[in-house]
Amino acid sequence: VAEARRPDTTFWVEPGAVRGDGLTLDREESRHLLRVHRAHPGTPFEAVDGEGGTFHCVLESAEDGLARGRVERVERDRGELRATIHLLVGIPEPGAAESLVEHAVPLGAGLLDFVACERSGRPALGPARLDRLIRLARSGVKQSKRSRLPVLRSSDSLASAVALAPPGTRLAADPGGGRLEIEANEAGQPAVTLAIGPPGGFSDPELGVLQGGGFRLISLGPNRLTSQTAAVTLLAVCRNALLDHRLWSI
Amino acid sequence: VAEARRPDTTFWVEPGAVRGDGLTLDREESRHLLRVHRAHPGTPFEAVDGEGGTFHCVLESAEDGLARGRVERVERDRGELRATIHLLVGIPEPGAAESLVEHAVPLGAGLLDFVACERSGRPALGPARLDRLIRLARSGVKQSKRSRLPVLRSSDSLASAVALAPPGTRLAADPGGGRLEIEANEAGQPAVTLAIGPPGGFSDPELGVLQGGGFRLISLGPNRLTSQTAAVTLLAVCRNALLDHRLWSI
Repeated sequence: VAEARRPDTTFWVEPGAVRGDGLTLDREESRHLLRVHRAHPGTPFEAVDGEGGTFHCVLESAEDGLARGRVERVERDRGELRATIHLLVGIPEPGAAESLVEHAVPLGAGLLDFVACERSGRPALGPARLDRLIRLARSGVKQSKRSRLPVLRSSDSLASAVALAPPGTRLAADPGGGRLEIEANEAGQPAVTLAIGPPGGFSDPELGVLQGGGFRLISLGPNRLTSQTAAVTLLAVCRNALLDHRLWSI
Repeated sequence: VAEARRPDTTFWVEPGAVRGDGLTLDREESRHLLRVHRAHPGTPFEAVDGEGGTFHCVLESAEDGLARGRVERVERDRGELRATIHLLVGIPEPGAAESLVEHAVPLGAGLLDFVACERSGRPALGPARLDRLIRLARSGVKQSKRSRLPVLRSSDSLASAVALAPPGTRLAADPGGGRLEIEANEAGQPAVTLAIGPPGGFSDPELGVLQGGGFRLISLGPNRLTSQTAAVTLLAVCRNALLDHRLWSI
């Protein structure tokens, strides 16, 4: 019998459901904790709020099917990179967008903007599609032991996506670009923005928008990559360059 | 009418079907060239044999539904990295294995070994599963403009997979490892072998096998990654370190 064992799962708690040293999981998360993990009062568990808070709790009560926990310890920004990585990706087909979220969230992306580029052949994603991607992102935050939910949005042009990009290093994938290297002074920037074209790549006017916006064009090698593989590759290389091994513990 | 335009597709040709300056596509590839792309005698097309040959051809005849081409130019090792990257991955669930092939082939993996690790909870993959993965790999070679078909195999233990690994740099992903950096002398090695555990990670005896085999343990950061995301990340970082921008043209 392992009823009081801490579940090897992180639960989601809405920020508004944390009050002082107590929190309440919603009905779905409560059911998961109480039914699937058979928690009872006294069982330890952890919850994240997607705004940087990780709450180490003990289950206090389970009335009306809602799990209420006492917060014993709070961690800030567990599993978050020091630098923010924003990803602007030309909208690919729906399955590729979902798969990209599943890879990019554990790899630390702080924002994913699915951009309706000239060659996307699709308008910006609507609320239903974005909601679905946000649910996947939430699941990725829990599974990967992050604590911040990335922003998910869909811009209706590359120009409007670039206008919203934060100051800092800016890189765009392009077969004609140079070698992908992150300089030491770039690794110290608070934000890195990465741009990857849709299937078919950026148009020439879009390449002009990127270069006008201070994006350095970099090549990912001699092969034709899908938007999804290119995005994960660029994110993985930048993440690795930005990792500071003194700053995390598992 | 664009009937004589070169299809933006690479076709597959079995090495035995190339003779002198002529080649014959198999029935399926022929149908694709003749029906989908509406090629007729005189249409240029290109084919790869998966053994390093890329054949720039002109369609000569289409009798009995078989496309026969005249080879006008042969390229060797187009789209191949100078160094070979071998990937040993603890067997994940079937969908993740397929998705990994779809990412890893365009990124230049020369070998994928799906290893029945202690925590895989699965035996080595049988011939039907491997055949399915090989078909995906072939498709990836064509789409990504590579010319060599990676080796796909499934070892029944990590020890037997490690025994087959080529000399050269050896890295294994482990949360307790050090920083992932490829040294200049490592980037010059002819082969790099990367090991990634199954869901749940390597067991302690397996970590012993890796360290005994000269694998350096490296960490991919503070987050829990799936085997698939970890494998693509490690491959992407190594690929980028090994790229020599003087050696390719697109």
